[in-house]
Amino acid sequence: MNVSVIVIGDELLIGQVVDTNSGELARQMAPWGWRVADVQTVADDADAITRAIDRAMELSDIVLTTGGLGPTKDDITKGVLCDYFGGELRLDEATLENVRRVVSRRGIALNRLTADQAIVPTSATIIQNEVGTAPITWFERGDKVLVSMPGVPFETRQMFSEKVFPMLRRRFGTDVAIRHATLIVTGYTESALAMKIADWETALPPHLHLAYLPRPGVIRLRLDGTHRDEKFITAEVDRYAGELAGMLGDAVLATDDLSPAEILLHDAGQQGMMIATAESCTGGNIAHSITMIPGSSAAMQGGIVAYSNEVKRRILNVSADDLDRYGAVSIPVVEQMARGACEATGATIAMATSGIAGPGGGTEEKPVGTVCIAVAMKTADGWKTYSETARFPGNRPRVIDAATTRALILAIKLLRGQL
Amino acid sequence: MNVSVIVIGDELLIGQVVDTNSGELARQMAPWGWRVADVQTVADDADAITRAIDRAMELSDIVLTTGGLGPTKDDITKGVLCDYFGGELRLDEATLENVRRVVSRRGIALNRLTADQAIVPTSATIIQNEVGTAPITWFERGDKVLVSMPGVPFETRQMFSEKVFPMLRRRFGTDVAIRHATLIVTGYTESALAMKIADWETALPPHLHLAYLPRPGVIRLRLDGTHRDEKFITAEVDRYAGELAGMLGDAVLATDDLSPAEILLHDAGQQGMMIATAESCTGGNIAHSITMIPGSSAAMQGGIVAYSNEVKRRILNVSADDLDRYGAVSIPVVEQMARGACEATGATIAMATSGIAGPGGGTEEKPVGTVCIAVAMKTADGWKTYSETARFPGNRPRVIDAATTRALILAIKLLRGQL
Repeated sequence: MNVSVIVIGDELLIGQVVDTNSGELARQMAPWGWRVADVQTVADDADAITRAIDRAMELSDIVLTTGGLGPTKDDITKGVLCDYFGGELRLDEATLENVRRVVSRRGIALNRLTADQAIVPTSATIIQNEVGTAPITWFERGDKVLVSMPGVPFETRQMFSEKVFPMLRRRFGTDVAIRHATLIVTGYTESALAMKIADWETALPPHLHLAYLPRPGVIRLRLDGTHRDEKFITAEVDRYAGELAGMLGDAVLATDDLSPAEILLHDAGQQGMMIATAESCTGGNIAHSITMIPGSSAAMQGGIVAYSNEVKRRILNVSADDLDRYGAVSIPVVEQMARGACEATGATIAMATSGIAGPGGGTEEKPVGTVCIAVAMKTADGWKTYSETARFPGNRPRVIDAATTRALILAIKLLRGQL
Repeated sequence: MNVSVIVIGDELLIGQVVDTNSGELARQMAPWGWRVADVQTVADDADAITRAIDRAMELSDIVLTTGGLGPTKDDITKGVLCDYFGGELRLDEATLENVRRVVSRRGIALNRLTADQAIVPTSATIIQNEVGTAPITWFERGDKVLVSMPGVPFETRQMFSEKVFPMLRRRFGTDVAIRHATLIVTGYTESALAMKIADWETALPPHLHLAYLPRPGVIRLRLDGTHRDEKFITAEVDRYAGELAGMLGDAVLATDDLSPAEILLHDAGQQGMMIATAESCTGGNIAHSITMIPGSSAAMQGGIVAYSNEVKRRILNVSADDLDRYGAVSIPVVEQMARGACEATGATIAMATSGIAGPGGGTEEKPVGTVCIAVAMKTADGWKTYSETARFPGNRPRVIDAATTRALILAIKLLRGQL
């Protein structure tokens, strides 16, 4: 099925909010072979919304809209849809009942503006929103369906998955099988990787397609297969992904679409290791990346954000002399930080970072982007420590992000005996 | 000026990557009153790109495209633009020279695929990309301009700001003045806030417009003014924003578009306080939010990610008895964590969190979303401590995000003597 998505809201066009809904919808539909043909982002403006619907209804069988359903004056989608599909706006008792339920579960009183959420177009089928006050409305014209959903990401994610998509699948449906395989590759630039596998890629059969998705420190290689025959395409994707993994060897961190933090948690869990962090320039981002993952507490012991030298000394037991002699951004200091993090927390493997994330603080010798990274692991034979000094391009968030990914990759490689 | 943005890339439509470029471009243009009329997200597909250009050229004076310029086979934008605007693809020596410079600065060898980036449409004016290998191309048709930029966010951000936008401003230009004011408000739901200020909002003159931008824990109220007369609209926006701030009192955390972390850093800096964190369920996210801000080291001392009870006891000095008696997710434990974070790091104000972020770990008494939060501050009269138990809706990232924001807000309120 072809799906067009319309994302509605002034806040998106002025760049105050980033649209994550269209991606979420695409990810949910991909395993069924439903693809998002295009996404239009438009203002809370009747003409713009109407024009976008016209285009989307022309291009696709299904149109999904998100946003513009808040209780305030700037949100106008409901009225525009009513004008577009006919009928009138009328209070719906079942919807009002649902709004009451949602509001009371939040422990808030129902006010007039929120109650007005139950005024809906008579031309729509209403799908009650179990987690928010804006009802979901389903419109039909000819063979085509438009579903209007709220803009709040968790509401859209949950209601699309549990109600809207199952209804759409019943209503439409396809019999093309789609299979994906993803390899997470490190140690190559995008073009170096493309050259390494150029011959193999050129020889791919037409039902397979390879995409390069670079991220700081890793490249995701996604092999997509499409075919009528589900068994055939499953076997083909498996076989070619296996070939590719064989060609790339240790550079392959994972053969699933996992983040470096997920891979590290998996490897540490298997080896019974507990993880700690000692972060200066990354400021908690390594710990945050790990603890965002459900179940991380099984292998995550804890961490220290050692932003000041005082914390490096007091909690991580870094030598005051070495801090003076080599500076906070130095190999001796990060190695002590990594081992100190294990000692302080009781963990068995740790990552440490100290660097200059910018924009200030750079020197000629240690310019902005310079980051010292160490990983240390307690083994039966004593400490295994590895460290390096990297220089990452870009601004502060990019340096923090790149240093985080690199530290996670080094920890994975240390656990795998690849350092 | 009306600007249409086309974001190109399969990875965006299948939801593997989130588009941040369109928002970045919008934010850069907003102060000049240039507005993004729509954003189209399309696949790496010649028909889809061509159709999107047709629409955008019809709607807007300026079309900006990002993405689809990588060195690999899946990126086809350059060829499509050459077909669209005429001419042929030819190697450009100046561009090759620039690609060489960029590659050598990264310490990588120039390979054939990367060198091919210097093959450009003869119909384009080339803008050299100082931070990446994909050149920026500028096309004209009639009065309209299309500029094709790379998809890598930091390249687009920097090159648009430093080269493309100044060139566009010289080429076009407007004399409408736009002014914004933003209030960061806490303690209201969106609809409760809308009702509180309904009369005031209804009475706004036509040159002013109010937008509600809810985020977990705060609502950003943005007052936009547009008028020929710059002095007039500046005074109007100031006056009405002042009125609004007066009506909302302590609920206003800031009268600038600042994040809670930025507000906390500002307040702590002014009072000479040093900040620490003790994070269990937020797992480093509070520290990360603070340390993402340039210059945060002036008021950020450090933090502890106390994921395991062992770390709570060993580093934060939480009573083992209390951990047993009340559980890790309890008021006595988070209060000790907050004070322990000050003691361990040498800071003077600290935030602590302990909760159940989910999806697992919930109980009837403490369901998923339950988070205990404490803030503690060292004063001349001893400790000032405040704590509360919150219950946040949504999935793991949402709970972590909401708890982070709430902890930051409580620290701001503690510093301001509002708790």
